[in-house]
Amino acid sequence: MPKTNKSAKAAGKTVPVKASQAMPVLRAIKGGKASTPKSPAKPGPAKSAVKPVTAVVADDAPVISLNLTPAKLSPAMAAYFKKCQDRLGFVPNVLLAYAFDMAKLESFVAMYNELMRGDSGLSKLEREMIAVAVSSQNRCYYCLAAHGAAVRRYSDNPLLGEHLVMNYRVARLNKRQRAMLDFAVKLTASPWSVEEGDRERLRRVGFTDRDIWDISAVAGFFNMSNRIASATDMRPNVAYHGQAR
Amino acid sequence: MPKTNKSAKAAGKTVPVKASQAMPVLRAIKGGKASTPKSPAKPGPAKSAVKPVTAVVADDAPVISLNLTPAKLSPAMAAYFKKCQDRLGFVPNVLLAYAFDMAKLESFVAMYNELMRGDSGLSKLEREMIAVAVSSQNRCYYCLAAHGAAVRRYSDNPLLGEHLVMNYRVARLNKRQRAMLDFAVKLTASPWSVEEGDRERLRRVGFTDRDIWDISAVAGFFNMSNRIASATDMRPNVAYHGQAR
Amino acid sequence: MPKTNKSAKAAGKTVPVKASQAMPVLRAIKGGKASTPKSPAKPGPAKSAVKPVTAVVADDAPVISLNLTPAKLSPAMAAYFKKCQDRLGFVPNVLLAYAFDMAKLESFVAMYNELMRGDSGLSKLEREMIAVAVSSQNRCYYCLAAHGAAVRRYSDNPLLGEHLVMNYRVARLNKRQRAMLDFAVKLTASPWSVEEGDRERLRRVGFTDRDIWDISAVAGFFNMSNRIASATDMRPNVAYHGQAR
Amino acid sequence: MPKTNKSAKAAGKTVPVKASQAMPVLRAIKGGKASTPKSPAKPGPAKSAVKPVTAVVADDAPVISLNLTPAKLSPAMAAYFKKCQDRLGFVPNVLLAYAFDMAKLESFVAMYNELMRGDSGLSKLEREMIAVAVSSQNRCYYCLAAHGAAVRRYSDNPLLGEHLVMNYRVARLNKRQRAMLDFAVKLTASPWSVEEGDRERLRRVGFTDRDIWDISAVAGFFNMSNRIASATDMRPNVAYHGQAR
Amino acid sequence: MPKTNKSAKAAGKTVPVKASQAMPVLRAIKGGKASTPKSPAKPGPAKSAVKPVTAVVADDAPVISLNLTPAKLSPAMAAYFKKCQDRLGFVPNVLLAYAFDMAKLESFVAMYNELMRGDSGLSKLEREMIAVAVSSQNRCYYCLAAHGAAVRRYSDNPLLGEHLVMNYRVARLNKRQRAMLDFAVKLTASPWSVEEGDRERLRRVGFTDRDIWDISAVAGFFNMSNRIASATDMRPNVAYHGQAR
Amino acid sequence: MPKTNKSAKAAGKTVPVKASQAMPVLRAIKGGKASTPKSPAKPGPAKSAVKPVTAVVADDAPVISLNLTPAKLSPAMAAYFKKCQDRLGFVPNVLLAYAFDMAKLESFVAMYNELMRGDSGLSKLEREMIAVAVSSQNRCYYCLAAHGAAVRRYSDNPLLGEHLVMNYRVARLNKRQRAMLDFAVKLTASPWSVEEGDRERLRRVGFTDRDIWDISAVAGFFNMSNRIASATDMRPNVAYHGQAR
Repeated sequence: MPKTNKSAKAAGKTVPVKASQAMPVLRAIKGGKASTPKSPAKPGPAKSAVKPVTAVVADDAPVISLNLTPAKLSPAMAAYFKKCQDRLGFVPNVLLAYAFDMAKLESFVAMYNELMRGDSGLSKLEREMIAVAVSSQNRCYYCLAAHGAAVRRYSDNPLLGEHLVMNYRVARLNKRQRAMLDFAVKLTASPWSVEEGDRERLRRVGFTDRDIWDISAVAGFFNMSNRIASATDMRPNVAYHGQAR
Repeated sequence: MPKTNKSAKAAGKTVPVKASQAMPVLRAIKGGKASTPKSPAKPGPAKSAVKPVTAVVADDAPVISLNLTPAKLSPAMAAYFKKCQDRLGFVPNVLLAYAFDMAKLESFVAMYNELMRGDSGLSKLEREMIAVAVSSQNRCYYCLAAHGAAVRRYSDNPLLGEHLVMNYRVARLNKRQRAMLDFAVKLTASPWSVEEGDRERLRRVGFTDRDIWDISAVAGFFNMSNRIASATDMRPNVAYHGQAR
Repeated sequence: MPKTNKSAKAAGKTVPVKASQAMPVLRAIKGGKASTPKSPAKPGPAKSAVKPVTAVVADDAPVISLNLTPAKLSPAMAAYFKKCQDRLGFVPNVLLAYAFDMAKLESFVAMYNELMRGDSGLSKLEREMIAVAVSSQNRCYYCLAAHGAAVRRYSDNPLLGEHLVMNYRVARLNKRQRAMLDFAVKLTASPWSVEEGDRERLRRVGFTDRDIWDISAVAGFFNMSNRIASATDMRPNVAYHGQAR
Repeated sequence: MPKTNKSAKAAGKTVPVKASQAMPVLRAIKGGKASTPKSPAKPGPAKSAVKPVTAVVADDAPVISLNLTPAKLSPAMAAYFKKCQDRLGFVPNVLLAYAFDMAKLESFVAMYNELMRGDSGLSKLEREMIAVAVSSQNRCYYCLAAHGAAVRRYSDNPLLGEHLVMNYRVARLNKRQRAMLDFAVKLTASPWSVEEGDRERLRRVGFTDRDIWDISAVAGFFNMSNRIASATDMRPNVAYHGQAR
Repeated sequence: MPKTNKSAKAAGKTVPVKASQAMPVLRAIKGGKASTPKSPAKPGPAKSAVKPVTAVVADDAPVISLNLTPAKLSPAMAAYFKKCQDRLGFVPNVLLAYAFDMAKLESFVAMYNELMRGDSGLSKLEREMIAVAVSSQNRCYYCLAAHGAAVRRYSDNPLLGEHLVMNYRVARLNKRQRAMLDFAVKLTASPWSVEEGDRERLRRVGFTDRDIWDISAVAGFFNMSNRIASATDMRPNVAYHGQAR
Repeated sequence: MPKTNKSAKAAGKTVPVKASQAMPVLRAIKGGKASTPKSPAKPGPAKSAVKPVTAVVADDAPVISLNLTPAKLSPAMAAYFKKCQDRLGFVPNVLLAYAFDMAKLESFVAMYNELMRGDSGLSKLEREMIAVAVSSQNRCYYCLAAHGAAVRRYSDNPLLGEHLVMNYRVARLNKRQRAMLDFAVKLTASPWSVEEGDRERLRRVGFTDRDIWDISAVAGFFNMSNRIASATDMRPNVAYHGQAR
């Protein structure tokens, strides 16, 4: 398939961004050793006999349902993809989806990292909890799979991940975290109805005004990402499903 | 008021980001001449006698209802604010709102400019039309005021701006633009329900897959911005209301 | 066009009620001098050169999308139309829309005037505020344009008009007016859920039972008018858009 | 009780509009013989022994939950009330509710009669069908009871009345009437979404543009009445429940 | 018609479950005398002349819109149908609808009787009140007709039945019953939002935890039945409409 | 803990149905060896060191939030529980929840088994797919966990389970199964709107009328179970989360 892909590009045809398609890019970055992401959920040999990898991939490929030609990665993005590959074992599909345009990819990565990994009064787990609760309200498959895994990983509590994916109200949260998710979900479902009383509820459980900005910005960001993912039929890396169960 | 503000900052107290408060920052940039934005909707002398500027400002101040201390503008952002001031006559309040943190401000500005002014199969007017239709669905005051003005300006058709603010279905659009807004509004109201059929409808009126990405990304972006604006009670610059009527 | 119209009527054909079509009626009333309503939003000569009146009218004509023949105005209605023309500079399009049937026009005018201009514990501005908040909930273009202008005019506060058009929750209202609009909007969105507790909230901010009737009747009336306007694609007079900015 | 009522009025106290309260008015009209409306649903003597009239009245009294003093009926309204009493055996409670103000009562009666009994391409039954379908969407007790009875009476088909009260989609309607109710219910539930395609659907089953106006106006009227009834907790005359079963 | 039906079955064709079709079954039970259910709402001879029984049946036949062959009744079910016939004068159509499969019919009857007639802290009337409030939220014609009649019968208060069918909020309920219906309707409309606070509200008005189970189970059961009835277009026995008016 | 529980029961106090509480019952059935359900998702020793079982249980215990005393299992139900324990390794919590009353437990088990395991034109997998799609619409944690696992197991496709839990529209289904889930979800979200056209769509993809009954009955059943689970805060067995990943 790399071959086909190459010739398609040579012929000037656009081709869909598929997980498999991104491999040549990764290969270049990694020095030729494109490792197929291992599906960590199915370790047993008996089972993988029954359901070969190709069947699974068919369910969640291509990465998006738009026919966009991957661009050449900028040096910064090539380095970033390599870092993902090294740390996670794969490049998150959302990055492959954006990789048709370096300016878009870079502004997405900059905002994402600033929000989710930058300095904040919210812990990384709390930011991921907002991501999942918002994505559940919007029923976004990509973000639920990817960030549900992150909640399981950061919390070391697989149940919490499932609670937030299915209905955050069943999670046994402290007052602070419950207020945080109530605000994020209300902001998602009916942004027009958020008023000073809602901000006051956050302050009463100890959030600063800067924290309120961060809750709002993370909730806002996933309202954007959920929609881009749904609009393009974005598919999560298979690896997420089995992480930290 | 600048004086009061300075002493508050000297005392180490955080102060809310207000239109008036941003002035010292602008003053520094502009060399001390903080011009009050003129309200272009009320040119007559008789009227401004009846309703002085202070009354109007009271209705839409401060910029946001969070108490955040403005940070020192980075050189890039100082230059950008100056450019806004020169071109528009004011710095859009959304920038003042983000100005408590340079990393956040810069990633917002980068994404915004890439999306709304970068290369695209969608005209700038079309991107602004999406912004307004989405913001109307979400009843976002800030974005309706600011981008409603942009639609009036880019289209040179004040009615179109009003149509999109009030109910985009009353606008007399061609098939392409109607399909574009139908997609953006469905993606806003029920993102989970967007499927291949919806993308097909866009392709049938001539949009490429790259265009579909751009429609989705602009709609997604304003679903983010609408929520940050509602969550923080962000107020538009008064100047927008009278532009291009 | 008056000529065409006349001959169409002579031939027994119904013709759509258009702004232009109403002119012969007005001409008769006014003694032959049918003045085109001036668009007050665009006073400058430079601009009207760029965008001629015909372009604007094409966006908001005809008055309704039903093909109804104007009836001969009754003496009372002819006098009323003349009064409108004299006072406002134009006859509101809703009256032209009803003018195919004198009984309907007269009962509409009677109810409208009794409600909006008759004796009440609510000020005229408050009644217009209800009209706009209800029409915003129902996203009714005609009523938002016409009554948004009325709020700007009566309040001498253009921002208040924009707030109510876009999201009444952003307006800085006193408790009485906020309770009034909360009641009107709840009654609009889910009338089945209004109960004694809702009436009590109005009484607590000082409204009498007679005032509660009036709030309900005005909110009810615009729930009717919004639907007739949406059902018939009713278009507001262009003049409204620029009033009292 | 008439006595009590009189003295209350003499003392300048406002009293609630109750069914019982309207009796003095009716007495004057009828020459002193205020007949208690017979509950036609319970003709048997055994049963009325078990559940006396007072128990039933307690469930649906007073007429509204606002404390409004009945005004003196104008001659026109006194005649109209008498006509109701003679023809129906009672004065509909909605008229008693409005009877605190003659101008309001008269404009309501004029519009109601013009719409529901005036000349139209819609039969009286069809207009009542719209009234019930709209009132069911809005879950309006008063209008469902009163106009449900009217549908049973005009159609001589008690099942049709029940269908429309409970879910108009179960009624076995011809295409014309189904399209009519689909339009009226859509206009009720989401007026902003009604467009030319909806009008075209009505035209395709034979409705004229004048008919479309009438469907819209009746649907609009009950969207008003439903809200006034819900806002004031208006209670239907007990007699309606048993009519035409 | 029994004859036709018989020959259809002889020919091995499936036939829809209709009221008329169930007659042979009933005939066997009753010893050959299949009595047509009398429409109790129309006792007068004058009226039935105008609207013959066949017209009424046409509006609510067949029992469901699925073409299912009635199975041979098991002895237990034959006895149960006979008991219904003796006690009510007819077999409820829901039982005829399930009678194509004895296992399904028996499990439905067992659960229904356990829930609605078994031991409970809720009175039978209260359970029927829940049934109607839930069915009104779901706009289920079958259940509103059948259980609306049951509320009228058990309460000996026809108004209560109408209130619950049309909008339970207008019923004059004590705190216990209002809290019960609020819980049941919230559980119907947004089950995901029910939490400990909702259960606490029930406990505060005196319900035990066992009662809360029963309220939930009855509300749950009618959320099932409403959907089976709507999915199959199930029609209630005509007799219900006139009961206990 | 069994000891505490015993003494509580000896003292005549009701105790909540908890996973731990059900153990004595299971112990009796199994001859004294109450095996703690192994959490199959966390096989590694390193991890269980980090997060002990008690922490996990605290997140999903007790089984329900109602304080109900377990009844003595009837012989049939004791045998059924033993069968569950043998086959699944645990007794599903929903059965423990119902075990306070044998009549309720038995009617639930009878209906459940008839529907989900009885003869049908729908495969067991298809019935589980309906269960999950309905439960996702209703955001029911218990049913999503338990039946999501069943879909993964029956389909041998973990992705399918995740798709249906998160948004069934992203699953790559054939036309038959997509139509089946569209019907079930519409019936869940707006049962009043299901009509003959919806049944026709099922027939067109090959479903018989008997199949339509079964789709409706399964969808109906989970609309019941979802609500009982949400009303009682029912918690799934931890084991489900890791099954068939």
